Amino acid sequence: MANPIAELVGLLSRLPGIGERTAARLAYHVLDQPRDYAEALGRSLVELHARVRRCQRCANYTAENLCEVCLDPRRDDGLVCVVARPPDVAALERGQSFRGRYYVLHALLAPLDGVGPEALPLAPLIERVKGGELREVIVATPLSVEGEATALFLAQQLRPLGVRCTRIASGLPHGGELEFSDQITLARAMDGRQEL
Amino acid sequence: MANPIAELVGLLSRLPGIGERTAARLAYHVLDQPRDYAEALGRSLVELHARVRRCQRCANYTAENLCEVCLDPRRDDGLVCVVARPPDVAALERGQSFRGRYYVLHALLAPLDGVGPEALPLAPLIERVKGGELREVIVATPLSVEGEATALFLAQQLRPLGVRCTRIASGLPHGGELEFSDQITLARAMDGRQEL
Repeated sequence: MANPIAELVGLLSRLPGIGERTAARLAYHVLDQPRDYAEALGRSLVELHARVRRCQRCANYTAENLCEVCLDPRRDDGLVCVVARPPDVAALERGQSFRGRYYVLHALLAPLDGVGPEALPLAPLIERVKGGELREVIVATPLSVEGEATALFLAQQLRPLGVRCTRIASGLPHGGELEFSDQITLARAMDGRQEL
Repeated sequence: MANPIAELVGLLSRLPGIGERTAARLAYHVLDQPRDYAEALGRSLVELHARVRRCQRCANYTAENLCEVCLDPRRDDGLVCVVARPPDVAALERGQSFRGRYYVLHALLAPLDGVGPEALPLAPLIERVKGGELREVIVATPLSVEGEATALFLAQQLRPLGVRCTRIASGLPHGGELEFSDQITLARAMDGRQEL
């Protein structure tokens, strides 16, 4: 019979940032807690993929056919923010300043890894642009090589259709020190300077 | 219908050292992995308490009636190391230098928290001492207030029965710098000095 603690430690240590030591600490902690907790956490994981779907409109994760943002009648239908992954939506929603809709790609262009334009699910977005309902598409893919390549490609596809395409700003983060910023960030902060 | 991601994040963030941000990162990571992984991890947690028992001889965690150490015929039956918790056994076993048996208390004296001597399951250990099979009891409870109190209490209980009671050494850890050691550790290192 296999060792159930070793088995759990092995599975936990496949999580990002969780080494074998931390995994062991977590496993023993769970054993120290009431049995209900381990069972609730376990069921939540067993059922996770079955319960989480992609929103039929924006592809964000949801338990329903449409996500909360898409169902909210108070959001601006003319403004769509394109992001790479569902946690990006969660991060922007924490800010509570964006009041438009989202569009989650679940992918980024990565030619070196063989991920080309066909992996980007753009057809529904292009339909909405053609339908004339969108005023502006804000491309909020990450400021990485893949994110930038994807942003450029999106602009090439969407701008000819007559919609405004914008990119989130790149520059020093809040509280950022020039001394500790990398050269690319500094150059972008300079290029993106605005009137005071 | 509840949000399955928020539910999982809430449960994960009850783990030690896992804040809400980390919990969210883990939840999204699990969603990015194949469904099999989430289900295996979940089942492992659901079944954990049911599969893990306490060894009938030493009370360490095991999937059987007796743990691996107690079943190993090559270990020294005359030497027992008393520890507070199962992970302490795992830590000592990693060292591979101790070849005796263990005895896991699953508790420490903590009078301020209302944990008195009755919470220490000493009867089986006392029986074994009385039976004359033990040469030495090494008390390896932690070097904390509770661990020290428990060690003193154990010695008071066991020594009159004619068994040798020892305590693991206290001093500077391997690689330790005097400059960065606390005063109690330094004092103990001095008190515990040995002939060169």
